Amino acid sequence: MPDLANQPLGVFDSGVGGLTVLSALQRALPNESLLYLGDTARVPYGSKPLDMVRGFARQIGRELLRRRVKGIVVACNTASAASLPELADELPVPVWGVVDPGVEAALAATRNGHVGVLGTVGTIDARVYQTRLEAAGMTTWGKACPLFVPIVEEGISDSSIATLVAQHYLADRPAVDTVILGCTHYPALRGTLQAVLGADVTLVDSAASTAAVVARDLRRTGLAAPAAAEGSVRHLVTGDVATYLHTARVLGGPLGPAEHVVLDALEPAPG
Amino acid sequence: MPDLANQPLGVFDSGVGGLTVLSALQRALPNESLLYLGDTARVPYGSKPLDMVRGFARQIGRELLRRRVKGIVVACNTASAASLPELADELPVPVWGVVDPGVEAALAATRNGHVGVLGTVGTIDARVYQTRLEAAGMTTWGKACPLFVPIVEEGISDSSIATLVAQHYLADRPAVDTVILGCTHYPALRGTLQAVLGADVTLVDSAASTAAVVARDLRRTGLAAPAAAEGSVRHLVTGDVATYLHTARVLGGPLGPAEHVVLDALEPAPG
Repeated sequence: MPDLANQPLGVFDSGVGGLTVLSALQRALPNESLLYLGDTARVPYGSKPLDMVRGFARQIGRELLRRRVKGIVVACNTASAASLPELADELPVPVWGVVDPGVEAALAATRNGHVGVLGTVGTIDARVYQTRLEAAGMTTWGKACPLFVPIVEEGISDSSIATLVAQHYLADRPAVDTVILGCTHYPALRGTLQAVLGADVTLVDSAASTAAVVARDLRRTGLAAPAAAEGSVRHLVTGDVATYLHTARVLGGPLGPAEHVVLDALEPAPG
Repeated sequence: MPDLANQPLGVFDSGVGGLTVLSALQRALPNESLLYLGDTARVPYGSKPLDMVRGFARQIGRELLRRRVKGIVVACNTASAASLPELADELPVPVWGVVDPGVEAALAATRNGHVGVLGTVGTIDARVYQTRLEAAGMTTWGKACPLFVPIVEEGISDSSIATLVAQHYLADRPAVDTVILGCTHYPALRGTLQAVLGADVTLVDSAASTAAVVARDLRRTGLAAPAAAEGSVRHLVTGDVATYLHTARVLGGPLGPAEHVVLDALEPAPG
């Protein structure tokens, strides 16, 4: 399918957090045209009901399809938790989330079978990581950490505040030997979390694992861009474009042309 | 205007924060029918560009007008900063924000003319409090405190984390003797902030001041509900109703019937 292979790969997130996944995709798939949609008008997703987030994901999926993407990466843990596997069933292109690759990496890393998951309220309450890990025989411990995203965005990931907040969230943890960073912002807190958890605990960041799975699947199905293609990145933003580009630059996300996008309203009864 | 006097008074906020203003209004105006709109689908406003928040406020103003309110209280500092006085000029009913009453209370409280303002990024960057205070001859110091709202919503307003974060934000303050709590969530942090600032500093919470101004204006213009009227509270919610009512209950906000509302999209060029 040479035609499809040349189409862009869609990626979306509630805002800028998914840029960590976009970076990993760019490294794993340097020839792809990547089309990233950041829903900054409605960020954050993590504190909103999953039903609502599912509606957002469906709306964004349709927008990306309209722009002829050959596949969609849900680069947001909350949206992955809320919308998969339903979104993959509804859309005529492959859809990847960040949860399954994170689970796989944790299963490969744990030695004692006790795995912790840190994430937003939405991700933790939905138990998406926990359910999958437990199905594989693991014992799990999930903890919602609402203060972590604003700490990262404040640029104080390595402060005494970050340490005290990490101690607060991790105080009642059992003897986990592996902890999944179940939110795309959390890798910025890796140093602080590793110091609080101790060097024996493995931290799993799903961005790189997700990119590896997407690259493998695209190549296996003949959908990968040809090696001669020049890779590119474009951004669609539901909120203010200048603010978005500023934050993307601070976070070191892959930059490129960015434009504002207005999403069509969904009909009341989705189908 | 007996007809108008019996119409409801509209109140809106980005979410649940404005319930502190709703409580104060209910105490000051026990006979009013209060119609509160919480835009929980798009909360928070504080980190979003003011242009976008201005659009949200205009959209909500039209929705409340469609429901025949006799006046509108913008119970959100960011929305007040973004939309006033333009919203008042556009709408055919009186519109009150929370900024002017807070400024008045601070001017009455300060002795040394040095006033601090704490708020969201949107409120502080717009300098709405600072501009008004400086026009009255005050010296001002504004500080954005993005971690305060999640700390309040986590229920750890009186923890060592809250103290450390307050010390972090207040470390570089000059010799202010009055500090405006420029966000409807912040009164929950009053104890922590008073301890960090010291007993000599006056904390100004604009909810009560705003309610007093609204009550005075309604009575002065004959728009207040008659003393025989039975007061009531109704809620409109753009997000999930059950989640909203749960949080409203936790925050002690005035409860009442709540329904989901879908806001009409604005035309691209507002007019």
